[in-house]
Amino acid sequence: MNVQSPLTAAPDVRDQFPAIVGWHYLDSAVSAQKPRQVIDAITNAYARDYASVHRGVYQRSADMTLAYEAARARAAEYIGGSAEETIFTRGATEAINLVAQVLPKEGRGRVLLSALEHHSNIVPWQLAGYEIDVVPLTADGRIDLDAAERMISEDHRVVAFAHVSNVLGSVLDARRAAEIAHSRGALLLLDGCQAAPRLAVDVEGIGADFYTYSGHKLYGPTGIGVLWGRKALLEAMPPYQGGGAMIDRVTFARTTFMPPPQRFEAGTPHIVGGIGLAAAIDWVEEIGVERIHAHEAALVAETRARLRELGFVTLYGPEESAGIVSFTVDGVHPHDVGTILDDAGVAIRAGHHCAQTLMDLLGVPATCRASFAAHSDASDLDALVEGLHKVKRIFG
Amino acid sequence: MNVQSPLTAAPDVRDQFPAIVGWHYLDSAVSAQKPRQVIDAITNAYARDYASVHRGVYQRSADMTLAYEAARARAAEYIGGSAEETIFTRGATEAINLVAQVLPKEGRGRVLLSALEHHSNIVPWQLAGYEIDVVPLTADGRIDLDAAERMISEDHRVVAFAHVSNVLGSVLDARRAAEIAHSRGALLLLDGCQAAPRLAVDVEGIGADFYTYSGHKLYGPTGIGVLWGRKALLEAMPPYQGGGAMIDRVTFARTTFMPPPQRFEAGTPHIVGGIGLAAAIDWVEEIGVERIHAHEAALVAETRARLRELGFVTLYGPEESAGIVSFTVDGVHPHDVGTILDDAGVAIRAGHHCAQTLMDLLGVPATCRASFAAHSDASDLDALVEGLHKVKRIFG
Repeated sequence: MNVQSPLTAAPDVRDQFPAIVGWHYLDSAVSAQKPRQVIDAITNAYARDYASVHRGVYQRSADMTLAYEAARARAAEYIGGSAEETIFTRGATEAINLVAQVLPKEGRGRVLLSALEHHSNIVPWQLAGYEIDVVPLTADGRIDLDAAERMISEDHRVVAFAHVSNVLGSVLDARRAAEIAHSRGALLLLDGCQAAPRLAVDVEGIGADFYTYSGHKLYGPTGIGVLWGRKALLEAMPPYQGGGAMIDRVTFARTTFMPPPQRFEAGTPHIVGGIGLAAAIDWVEEIGVERIHAHEAALVAETRARLRELGFVTLYGPEESAGIVSFTVDGVHPHDVGTILDDAGVAIRAGHHCAQTLMDLLGVPATCRASFAAHSDASDLDALVEGLHKVKRIFG
Repeated sequence: MNVQSPLTAAPDVRDQFPAIVGWHYLDSAVSAQKPRQVIDAITNAYARDYASVHRGVYQRSADMTLAYEAARARAAEYIGGSAEETIFTRGATEAINLVAQVLPKEGRGRVLLSALEHHSNIVPWQLAGYEIDVVPLTADGRIDLDAAERMISEDHRVVAFAHVSNVLGSVLDARRAAEIAHSRGALLLLDGCQAAPRLAVDVEGIGADFYTYSGHKLYGPTGIGVLWGRKALLEAMPPYQGGGAMIDRVTFARTTFMPPPQRFEAGTPHIVGGIGLAAAIDWVEEIGVERIHAHEAALVAETRARLRELGFVTLYGPEESAGIVSFTVDGVHPHDVGTILDDAGVAIRAGHHCAQTLMDLLGVPATCRASFAAHSDASDLDALVEGLHKVKRIFG
């Protein structure tokens, strides 16, 4: 990948993705494609190394346990955390549900969210009985932290924000968000689903209290996600699900539990999910997430410039964003745009992007969204622009 | 596989498992090894067909959605259920937690379990605030349904039993269990983790209300499980986790939800887990689960006979069991047995098998457990017996 000239095709990266040959995949924000290295790690885990973890007395099981725990350490280290503070979940959605359900409220019944949150960072708080306050956005589509500073109160148990917006690509000033939350004794939870594949994350540097990201958006397997939380907070949280591996001693009268993170991982874990995620993190770090970020930021800048030139496209969100561009084609429903682009070999997303509240705010039922990854290049952008000309021709 | 002579090596089946070459894997009850057909399905899903499901406007995503929903139909049909009554979960543990947490209690605060339940069918009920009554076992280690019939009351919301014991291999008379539960208006939940790989299951024929099994024990991937429930029950249950894909309409004031099964699947699902599970079910059905059952039952009978002949082994559980034999070697701790067998290339389990309450009842802290699969054969049994002679020589 050539960072100086990021729009140059990067065959060394692109060739590592077997599933996108001859295809312009601009939907990485919903789920990333997988490099060969990750697919091989998954295949080897099943075809060569497979055993369950944690309780086997034979060597293969001990080896698999080491690999699974090494994956946990990798998932923690990737965001600057420690393994004992890192829980494997099914995904970021489950992670937020877990916190919403079992974090003691300590007399604070409100959460502070923003107007651009994904449904996964809204509905869990509703189900857990929290009252929600909504921080507005700046004119260019970032979370308005000045407003957050005015709104934060001692009734708020948690401030929960997207680190990067899945619709607009807006990047949060996470450190300031932490300061705002802590100024009134609230906790900061960051939804890092779009940030983890695109930014260098340092939970300690940010001062976050909880951080979550999903494996499948980070070039890893489906069904695995990560919840990082401060040790003292995790220790104060009761179990979420009950079952094997999370207990200390079970009787029908009374059960005692393991310390975190095991307390929060009931049942046989998604062993190969953890191993595949570790392989994905290895892959990202071999390139460097900073390089991926620079590459995607340059693609975003060029995309916005070229879509603006078309004269029939409306762009949303800030000029500088992390790998994601939302737009509409004047007079054409986003689904029709998506369908015509599909015929042209370009995959974008069209819809509410699990952010209906943001759509309400933007005043549209849906947008088109192009999202980039390490393998994206100028050919993808050329195909997108060419496809939009076709949309214009058809809908004239 | 030769059912008439099940102890004959079955190279046609055994050769399909790349991870057990030169190894005697007798730990399928904790997690099954994967046939090549399943591994290939997983690899193809990532390396050729990958896209997210449900909301894509492009063809690849539509195809993946069809494949994922076809997997749901497969997972349902395998146990005689319908797709709209079938929820994908992380595993059986999550499935039981889901029911325990969101099934309306309707004024009944007790559950009826048995003395042989896995922790995953005990702890969720405790966490959900149910009082537990415990059905004792018969002398040979089956759930005593005569006792259950005496104990069932109108205070019981759920009767929750293992269809097959993970420690003893005991097979429940599931139809009678359903009649007992229903006689007082209680529901029957069956933990089918050990049954699904070993028995033909028909939830309608049984009269069950909920049934659950895990993918990784059925020759499938990790991180995927199945919860089947009667439609009217699922419709009466509120959401378990909140997030994308399970909502109808989200506002900060109020959110409405999809009908089942989507209501219970928040967030991006374990897409490839579903597809891999469907491939595993295809594989099992190509052989026929009845043939696998007969094969394993014959292995169990032969194992019990040969271990009894040794004269220094204590056997637990009924003579007729589904693929699982628990035993101890007189005077030797099960962990030491397991370690010596490992040196001899035989993988068994040694421990409490996530059933501490059953260990308490048996009066031992742990047992050894050999568990069989479709690929097991006489060479595994020979190696086990030879290894036990070695245990006896060392511990004399």
